[in-house]
Amino acid sequence: MSPIDALAEKLPTGRLLTDPDVVDSYARDRTFLEPGKALGVVLATTRDDVVATMRWASEHRVPVVPRGAGTGLAGGATATEGSVVLSLIRMNAIRELSPADEIAVVEPGVITADLDRAAREHGLMYAPDPSSYEISTIGGNLATNAGGLRCVKYGVTRDSALGLEVVLADGRVLNTGRRTVKGVTGYDLTGLFVGSEGTLGVITAATVRLRRAPLAPPATFAAEFGSLREAAAAVSAIIAAGCQPSLMELLDRATLEAIDDWRHIGLEPATRAMLIGQSDAADGQAVALRMQELCEANGATFVAVSSTPAEAEELIAVRRMAYQAKERLGACLVEDVCVPRSALPEMITAIEAAAARHDVKICTVAHAGDGNLHPVFIFEHGTAEPPAEVWAAADEVFTKALELGGTLTGEHGVGLLKRRWLDLEAGPVVSEVQRGIKAVFDPLGILNPGKAI
Amino acid sequence: MSPIDALAEKLPTGRLLTDPDVVDSYARDRTFLEPGKALGVVLATTRDDVVATMRWASEHRVPVVPRGAGTGLAGGATATEGSVVLSLIRMNAIRELSPADEIAVVEPGVITADLDRAAREHGLMYAPDPSSYEISTIGGNLATNAGGLRCVKYGVTRDSALGLEVVLADGRVLNTGRRTVKGVTGYDLTGLFVGSEGTLGVITAATVRLRRAPLAPPATFAAEFGSLREAAAAVSAIIAAGCQPSLMELLDRATLEAIDDWRHIGLEPATRAMLIGQSDAADGQAVALRMQELCEANGATFVAVSSTPAEAEELIAVRRMAYQAKERLGACLVEDVCVPRSALPEMITAIEAAAARHDVKICTVAHAGDGNLHPVFIFEHGTAEPPAEVWAAADEVFTKALELGGTLTGEHGVGLLKRRWLDLEAGPVVSEVQRGIKAVFDPLGILNPGKAI
Repeated sequence: MSPIDALAEKLPTGRLLTDPDVVDSYARDRTFLEPGKALGVVLATTRDDVVATMRWASEHRVPVVPRGAGTGLAGGATATEGSVVLSLIRMNAIRELSPADEIAVVEPGVITADLDRAAREHGLMYAPDPSSYEISTIGGNLATNAGGLRCVKYGVTRDSALGLEVVLADGRVLNTGRRTVKGVTGYDLTGLFVGSEGTLGVITAATVRLRRAPLAPPATFAAEFGSLREAAAAVSAIIAAGCQPSLMELLDRATLEAIDDWRHIGLEPATRAMLIGQSDAADGQAVALRMQELCEANGATFVAVSSTPAEAEELIAVRRMAYQAKERLGACLVEDVCVPRSALPEMITAIEAAAARHDVKICTVAHAGDGNLHPVFIFEHGTAEPPAEVWAAADEVFTKALELGGTLTGEHGVGLLKRRWLDLEAGPVVSEVQRGIKAVFDPLGILNPGKAI
Repeated sequence: MSPIDALAEKLPTGRLLTDPDVVDSYARDRTFLEPGKALGVVLATTRDDVVATMRWASEHRVPVVPRGAGTGLAGGATATEGSVVLSLIRMNAIRELSPADEIAVVEPGVITADLDRAAREHGLMYAPDPSSYEISTIGGNLATNAGGLRCVKYGVTRDSALGLEVVLADGRVLNTGRRTVKGVTGYDLTGLFVGSEGTLGVITAATVRLRRAPLAPPATFAAEFGSLREAAAAVSAIIAAGCQPSLMELLDRATLEAIDDWRHIGLEPATRAMLIGQSDAADGQAVALRMQELCEANGATFVAVSSTPAEAEELIAVRRMAYQAKERLGACLVEDVCVPRSALPEMITAIEAAAARHDVKICTVAHAGDGNLHPVFIFEHGTAEPPAEVWAAADEVFTKALELGGTLTGEHGVGLLKRRWLDLEAGPVVSEVQRGIKAVFDPLGILNPGKAI
């Protein structure tokens, strides 16, 4: 009996898919990366399915590629040759939601925004909001330690993860963490799994922290600047003034042009950058006006402040259009460097220089309060892989980010895409230690091999 | 040449102490635990001293017990027989403080409150504030993932640690994390070291996050209740109303009596519990008044709200007296269970029942907003170890905390004291995984052996 037939016998009917077209549809994420040919897809519906799959994989030495919704931007869920894809999308129950303890216990396939909506029925929210949160899953968010727009105020996915249920490579079940907000018994295994991109185990449940939802809709401003340096100075001033924005996004000229070409937002010729910010504090309107003042004091040529939720929506809509506007221009390599906040202007200048030097179109959006930039490198649709000049420009951007004390990836993860630059950031001792940890959890190397570390 | 003489040769003069009385003074923490006889104490002044010590220790297979100020409450820094104590107290430089990036780079011997004061000169603060923060070190705080009073709003030490420089058991230097607030390159090694109680490596520098200091002094309330259940209900109501207290402490009758015996605070016969809370928000006074209302709505018999900083100090002073007041009663076993917030009343009831059943005096203070309780078991001064009835009562308390979905230790760590209960919480798979991780970092088992896991 072939290994894949043996797997079929271990699982309830219908949980293993082997039709090549179907398998291929579960083999990709949102990158351009071409997957290897996988043997099949397990649509896990229970923890037992995951245990059976991992036991079988250990027995037959078959690589397993865990996956959520496949919205990743680094190739973490790209299927590798001869692997089995383990989809957690059907394990989508919110098992518990406790308003008194402000926690939820969820399965990995729960859609991020669905958990947030469920929490809001109780005056709570699930804070992490990656841009894909209407289609991404909690499991994928945990695997990549996803960030988002609100994390400037509320932190990343790690900051909302209290405990995990994990199936290890050999099928053993590990419970990490707890239901309490504090706790220091033993090593922080929860933190170790968050961001490990499916290389240490398969998360089958998570206890997550909920937070009080703001009582009023957020107050919003949008400010236009004649230079990126002034916009970055406004960001620093807003943070230094203790405004605690719940969102603060910076869009460069290239991004604004892409949006204007598509939706005609009336972009002024002199506008080089737009800063969009929100406050969800009880006195949010006053904070938004204070942020307006700080933008003006730092050279903003025009600042709009919303006075109704509808106006706020209109201002924020520009930010929401950014990614789709870029996709109209060509294929996109979405990058994710993060630098200390004070280095934001220098990083943006370096991105513009790399674009000019290599004649590559780069549109940049930044979660400015966190120093996290998404330079999007545009190249021709239909090419299998970005051309050499894109990689040359990306290489310069990565090198500069590290030189500024930053990191290759603020919130997308390493996946396959960023592995070749990893040694520049991590160094040999980190690599040795990471390989040692990987071997503790996955001695046969069957869990998402070739990813993350 | 004896091993200890070989160590003396590796270190600059004056860095190794071997006088038995001096060594003994570095061998204890704040517990009653009797240390083993250590060979000597290294007063590390530079990272090179730490590297030399660890290389020597690996060569000679000598256990090393890292220590900060020795303010621990679980025996994590208690010297073991034949070990060398590695004191980091002299490595106390604040290497960098960047207001623009809201970070500091500090050595492990920096006193927690000193870092906070340095940050406040720039309108910032270092948020974690364990009760010992005027004498504890950042290194010790990192080793135990220390909490504190403010962590109900600002999180524990882990939430302020961005990156670490660590000397491994064999003397290699590992740099974890980054200077940015976000980053997902590789596994979260920073989180793994925080709370590992010196069993995985010796922290020689840390990049920590600073936060904006509140603009105004906190507004404070103190409320008296005729029952613990009403006080706990007030806690839940305050959290549910989104008041975001920056401190919320609960004191039981036994604690209040201990304070009243000492300082005559005019304790009413019917008062069973006191709740003390603060808001450091811009509209803190209004929030304090709202918290007062919520206390009254939940049965408070009397609530005072400060209208000046001096009055706030007076209200909070009662909380500050708690530990000293208990020390007047006898020797103290300070425990540290943490339960989901909704289980607070049940946990307190169980503590009172255990006290009555075993005829043991237990005074409890809780970081109520976090569900973190410190039941202090009082026993006769001069006994080497708590008597059997204290352990029997403690055993009941631990078992109940776990039954309620809680943990043995919210912020003190496992050390030596809590190891015998560890299996009840962690289970065999966690133990196996932890031992595997320990072996990656410390294959010879020389780093603080017998502690934490």
